[in-house]
Amino acid sequence: MGSSHQNGGGDGGGGGMMAVDKAADYANYFCTYSFLYHQKEMLSDRVRMDAYHNAVFQNKHHFAGKTVLDVGTGSGILAIWSAQAGARKVYAVEATKMSEHARALVKANNLENVVQVIEGSIEDISLPEKGWFFLVFFLDVIISEWMGYFLLRESMFDSVICARDRWLKPTGVMYPSHARMWMAPIRSGLVDHKKDDFDGAMHDWNGFVEDTKTYYGVDMSVLTKSFAEEQRKYYQQTSLWQNLHPQQVIGTAAVVKEIDCSTASVADIVEVRSNFASTITSDNTRLCGFGGWFDVHFRGSKDDPAQQEVELTTAPSVHDSTHWGQQVFFLHPPIRASEGDNLSLSFTMTRSKENHRLMEVELGCQIKCSSGKLLPPFNKKFYIE
Amino acid sequence: MGSSHQNGGGDGGGGGMMAVDKAADYANYFCTYSFLYHQKEMLSDRVRMDAYHNAVFQNKHHFAGKTVLDVGTGSGILAIWSAQAGARKVYAVEATKMSEHARALVKANNLENVVQVIEGSIEDISLPEKGWFFLVFFLDVIISEWMGYFLLRESMFDSVICARDRWLKPTGVMYPSHARMWMAPIRSGLVDHKKDDFDGAMHDWNGFVEDTKTYYGVDMSVLTKSFAEEQRKYYQQTSLWQNLHPQQVIGTAAVVKEIDCSTASVADIVEVRSNFASTITSDNTRLCGFGGWFDVHFRGSKDDPAQQEVELTTAPSVHDSTHWGQQVFFLHPPIRASEGDNLSLSFTMTRSKENHRLMEVELGCQIKCSSGKLLPPFNKKFYIE
Repeated sequence: MGSSHQNGGGDGGGGGMMAVDKAADYANYFCTYSFLYHQKEMLSDRVRMDAYHNAVFQNKHHFAGKTVLDVGTGSGILAIWSAQAGARKVYAVEATKMSEHARALVKANNLENVVQVIEGSIEDISLPEKGWFFLVFFLDVIISEWMGYFLLRESMFDSVICARDRWLKPTGVMYPSHARMWMAPIRSGLVDHKKDDFDGAMHDWNGFVEDTKTYYGVDMSVLTKSFAEEQRKYYQQTSLWQNLHPQQVIGTAAVVKEIDCSTASVADIVEVRSNFASTITSDNTRLCGFGGWFDVHFRGSKDDPAQQEVELTTAPSVHDSTHWGQQVFFLHPPIRASEGDNLSLSFTMTRSKENHRLMEVELGCQIKCSSGKLLPPFNKKFYIE
Repeated sequence: MGSSHQNGGGDGGGGGMMAVDKAADYANYFCTYSFLYHQKEMLSDRVRMDAYHNAVFQNKHHFAGKTVLDVGTGSGILAIWSAQAGARKVYAVEATKMSEHARALVKANNLENVVQVIEGSIEDISLPEKGWFFLVFFLDVIISEWMGYFLLRESMFDSVICARDRWLKPTGVMYPSHARMWMAPIRSGLVDHKKDDFDGAMHDWNGFVEDTKTYYGVDMSVLTKSFAEEQRKYYQQTSLWQNLHPQQVIGTAAVVKEIDCSTASVADIVEVRSNFASTITSDNTRLCGFGGWFDVHFRGSKDDPAQQEVELTTAPSVHDSTHWGQQVFFLHPPIRASEGDNLSLSFTMTRSKENHRLMEVELGCQIKCSSGKLLPPFNKKFYIE
C-alpha cells in the first residue's frame, strides 16, 4: 500500500532526488527490520548466508587488517564475519532499534574491540574515524545485503551508493561487486486463480450494489469502474512472490539490467529501461507471464580482485530457494505459445511516486510465432508492492 | 506494528496531547481507508448499516432543514442519508482520496446541492459556512462512524471531539450520542493454539541458534530472551479479532467505560481506568481470557431527544456479527473456574507511545472462588495492534 510523500523532510538522498518523509519511511519500510523474527528469516536463508559467508572467508585478503563498513547491519552478521575474517575495524550501521541487538551480539561474540555498531541512517550519520585529520575516504570495504525482491525493490542500494561516495577509498572494494536483474517467460496455473479472484470480487460487488440500492436507497453503481480498477490492480497487476520451479520457465532468460556496484549512480537505477528478447523453449504451452529475479557477484575490484569469486543467484532452482523467491508478472489473458516463438520485450521500471521503495513496471511485448506470424503488440502495467 | 512518532509535525490535536507526524499517520492509519474494498467491507456490515440508517430515518426531525457534518465520511454514506432525511446542508469531510469517490457518489445520487465533500482532516480544514459573519458554532448535527475495535482503537473520536468543540451549536446533537466499552470472561480453544504457536517458534529458534553456531560461527544465544519477548508479545499478548459465540462468554459482562459524546474530552479517553467485577456463570470451565466489545446509542440530546432511540451493539451474538468482532485478551495459562467464582478486575488502557492509534492494556485480576478461597492476584499486559 502506498503512503504519502512530503517534500521538505530529510535530505534528498533517500528518494532518488525527492525528499522522503522519515517518519513515513519508517512506518512504511524500516519498521519491519526492527523485528527479530524478520532478521531470523533472512539469517535462515542458507543460500544467502552461504554466499556471503563464502565471499568473506574465501577472500580474507580483502578484510584482514582493513576498515570495513556494513550498510544496514540488521543483526550484525556481516559485520561479525568481517571481523572474524581479520578486519581491523568494522562500522555496522543500522537504522532501527535492531542495532541494540547487533551490539549485544557483537559483545557476546567477543568482537566489541573491532565492531562498532551505530544506530542511524547512512545518509545522516558521521563515521568516527580518528587519525588523519583530513581523511575523508578511508573505507577499504563496503559490505551490504541490500537486495530486495527483483533486486531493486526497497531502493536500499541508494544508501550503499551514498556510503560509497562518502567514504570508500578509490582502491576500495564493494561486497557484492556486481548485480543483475533477469527475466524469463513463465507458465503458472496461478494466473487462472487470480482471474477467478477478480471475477469473484466483481460478482460480489454487483450483489453489493444491488443490496445497497434496495435496502439503503443509495446507488453505488457510479463506483463500479473504480472498484474494478482497484481490484484489477490488486489481483492481476501486482507482482506476486513465487518460488518458481525451473519447469515453469518456458523460454530463454535475459538480463534486463547490469549494475557495477563500484560505479553505479542513483540516476542509473532510478529508472530501469531495457529491450530484450526471449525465445520460447517449451512446446504447446501457455505464456502466463514473466518471472523476474536477480543475482549478485563478489568479484572484488579490477585492481584488487577476489581470490575466490562467489555468486548468489535467486533464479528458479530445483534444490535451492531463497526468501526472495521470484517476482511474477501475470498476463491476463495468458497466450498460447509454441517452441520457437520469439518475444521482443521492452521493460521499464520506475519508482512509485507515493513510496520510492515500491516500483511500477511497464512491459511491452511483441510475439513473432515460429510460423512467422506476427501477433499484435501489447503493453501491460504492473506494480511491485 | 508500531511506527515512530515525531514531535513537531502537525498540530497537537491528533495524538492526544502529542504532535503526530502526518505522513507517518497516513502510512500507518489513514491509507487503508482510501481503498474501496475496505469501504465496501464496512458498507456490507448489515448491523452497522441498519443501525445508522434507522437512527437517521427514524429521527428525521433532527435532520430536516438542518446543517450536518459527517466526520470521516469515507464513501459518503452517512452524509447521503442525512441529505435524504431532509438536511439543508451536509459537510462530508474525508482525509483520504476516498473523498473523490464520495463526491461522485453524492452527484450520482443527485445530492450535490446539499452535500459538500471536503478532502482534509477535521483538525486542519475550515468549513465554508456563509451568512452570519461571526457564526462559529453553526452545526445542528455531527454524525460519524468513528468506532474502532473495542471502541477506541484508531483514536478517531478525538477528531469528532475536535469537530464538536469547533462547530457544534450548544443545542446540537451527536450521532451517536453515547458509547460504552464492555468486557466479560470467556473460554476459547484458541488459547492453546497460541501457546503451541509460541512454543513452536521457540523450538524453531533454538534449532536456528544451533545451526548458526555450527555453520556460521556466530553465537546468537544472547538474543534468545529478546526473541522470546517478541514472540510472546506477538502470539500471546496481542489481542485477537474474534467473532465470539455467546456460549464462549462464561461470566457476567461489565461496562468498563461510558462516554457521553456531547461532553467527553480527549483527556477523558486518552487513558481508560476502570475497576469492575464479574461472576462466572458457567460451571467447571476454563477462564481463557476476556472479550472486549462496545455499543453505541443514538438518543439525541437531553433538550432534543430522539423520537426513536437506536442501539448498535457488537456484543457476542448468535445471529448478528459485525466487522468489529470482539477483541480477545488471552490468559496464559488459562485458569480453571467454577460457577459462582467472583472476579475483581482492574482495567487500564493507554495509547501506544509509538502510535497513538494503537493501545496498551493492563488487566489486574483477583479471583475469589465460590468455595471462598482467594487465589493470588495477577497482572497481565496486552497490546491492541
